[in-house]
Amino acid sequence: MSKEQRAQVDAMLRQPRPDGPQPVEALRAGFKAMMARMAVPDGIRITRTTLGGRPSLHIEPDNGPRTGTILYFHGGGFVFGSPETALSLTGQLVARTGFRSYSLDYRLAPEHPFPAAIEDTLGAYRALLDSGEDPSTIAFAGDSAGGGLTVTTCLAARDAGLPMPAAIVAFSPGLDATRTGESMDTKAGIDPFFTRESLGHTGAMYLAGADPHQPVLSPAVLADLTGFPPMLLQAGTNEVLLDDSTRLAARARAAGVDVVLDITADVPHVFQSFAGVLDEADQALDRAALFLTQQVRRPRDHR
Amino acid sequence: MSKEQRAQVDAMLRQPRPDGPQPVEALRAGFKAMMARMAVPDGIRITRTTLGGRPSLHIEPDNGPRTGTILYFHGGGFVFGSPETALSLTGQLVARTGFRSYSLDYRLAPEHPFPAAIEDTLGAYRALLDSGEDPSTIAFAGDSAGGGLTVTTCLAARDAGLPMPAAIVAFSPGLDATRTGESMDTKAGIDPFFTRESLGHTGAMYLAGADPHQPVLSPAVLADLTGFPPMLLQAGTNEVLLDDSTRLAARARAAGVDVVLDITADVPHVFQSFAGVLDEADQALDRAALFLTQQVRRPRDHR
Repeated sequence: MSKEQRAQVDAMLRQPRPDGPQPVEALRAGFKAMMARMAVPDGIRITRTTLGGRPSLHIEPDNGPRTGTILYFHGGGFVFGSPETALSLTGQLVARTGFRSYSLDYRLAPEHPFPAAIEDTLGAYRALLDSGEDPSTIAFAGDSAGGGLTVTTCLAARDAGLPMPAAIVAFSPGLDATRTGESMDTKAGIDPFFTRESLGHTGAMYLAGADPHQPVLSPAVLADLTGFPPMLLQAGTNEVLLDDSTRLAARARAAGVDVVLDITADVPHVFQSFAGVLDEADQALDRAALFLTQQVRRPRDHR
Repeated sequence: MSKEQRAQVDAMLRQPRPDGPQPVEALRAGFKAMMARMAVPDGIRITRTTLGGRPSLHIEPDNGPRTGTILYFHGGGFVFGSPETALSLTGQLVARTGFRSYSLDYRLAPEHPFPAAIEDTLGAYRALLDSGEDPSTIAFAGDSAGGGLTVTTCLAARDAGLPMPAAIVAFSPGLDATRTGESMDTKAGIDPFFTRESLGHTGAMYLAGADPHQPVLSPAVLADLTGFPPMLLQAGTNEVLLDDSTRLAARARAAGVDVVLDITADVPHVFQSFAGVLDEADQALDRAALFLTQQVRRPRDHR
């Protein structure tokens, strides 16, 4: 682990920023510019396609994928971001696993509030199943709001009578729209990205008046995870969302679900984006890749 | 994951056993017989040696080790077990990492109660350092009581002014002599190995009247883990000691320590012993091996 690299990343993120809530277009442009700085790995092939009626990026290893599909959900608070802004993360997972991925351009708030995003992610999963893909070869992965979607899409799939995917991998997932995690307060000021106010700003666009006290909005405090696939949750200690992961892991353990809660100290929200710059990012991605290959490799009937 | 394999292992362990506390010699013989059934991997070379004045097994890959030393502490409630009973586990880590290992025959209770075991493990670590080995190339690993020693030996090393090793890997560690984890009650009857009574029986031999309310006896409830190396804690949900790991992980996060809390559902205490029989065991060992190789690979001054 490199203390120096962790400090560099933190200092980089603590640049002065505009005070107060930003207009949606400024949020989208700012996030796009920031994520464009993240390295996309070599050796992958990217194609624009659609899945379940939504645009998506299909990403596969140059030398042909092995069996396994990562359905990826990008971050951005349900308001900004796209498969392009998450291309570094998705590409890293594809390069390290050899699986192909569909990264979904789900609908965003405020134009399309809750539950539009989950309708789209569930629709994409259903389309994969309808195409004949075995659920034991499909993993959900995502970061931030998209990390939350890995969990809530499973809830929606279970409700719809669909089989579970083989695994969940979530980077710094947002799992609690009630914002009741202790880390919301204990990590205030330590988190270089988020404040309670900034999360409330985008969160209100997504909720559009919906009650946050629902499992599909706050799974870390309300969801019954019985029957869920093995999950890997990665987060940093420098984030207000840390306890979204710790509480979901506790619920998973209580529900008899295999769960790896993988916490890296002194790194920010979705630190895996800093692959190539921060050793901890590459190491976390390698752990995620091993987890995915362990879960996806066997046919469903062996379980 | 194989539900069938998990159920087979559970049924195998639920054989009828003698009621009530057993004499020490019966405990030792029974544990030796049980652990002799576990598979020792091919491709390793085993030599009897001493380390810090205590007998130990030196285990290395047949084809020559790469840089990295696992100091291994066997399980057995501080009363039974030996490097031989843990040979399957230690051998699996050696085979999967390519590192060499010293597995220490530390003194046992009741003949040698607390703090004899920690004196011996600290002595072994000091001997490795005195031999010129860089602490950044040393990892502590252990199971059950020996998993506890991976943590308490770091506490003792810190108190002695010694540098920390590069990593800790603990399989179902015992980390709380006060036995106050919720799982002590919620997993009673679910755990095929332990009851509060059986743990109390061996625990009393180790304590020999010492107050369990000390960090080196109950690190999960009392230890300050500041400055600790990255740690991987693996446990099953079918064990009364589960919350020893969950509480230590919480303390590690609070202390700014990298920590992976890796929980497998419906498997017993030190399920990694069932490598070759239970897929989850092999997968957990592979995750442990990746973690070790990630932490041990760089020189200390890069940290």
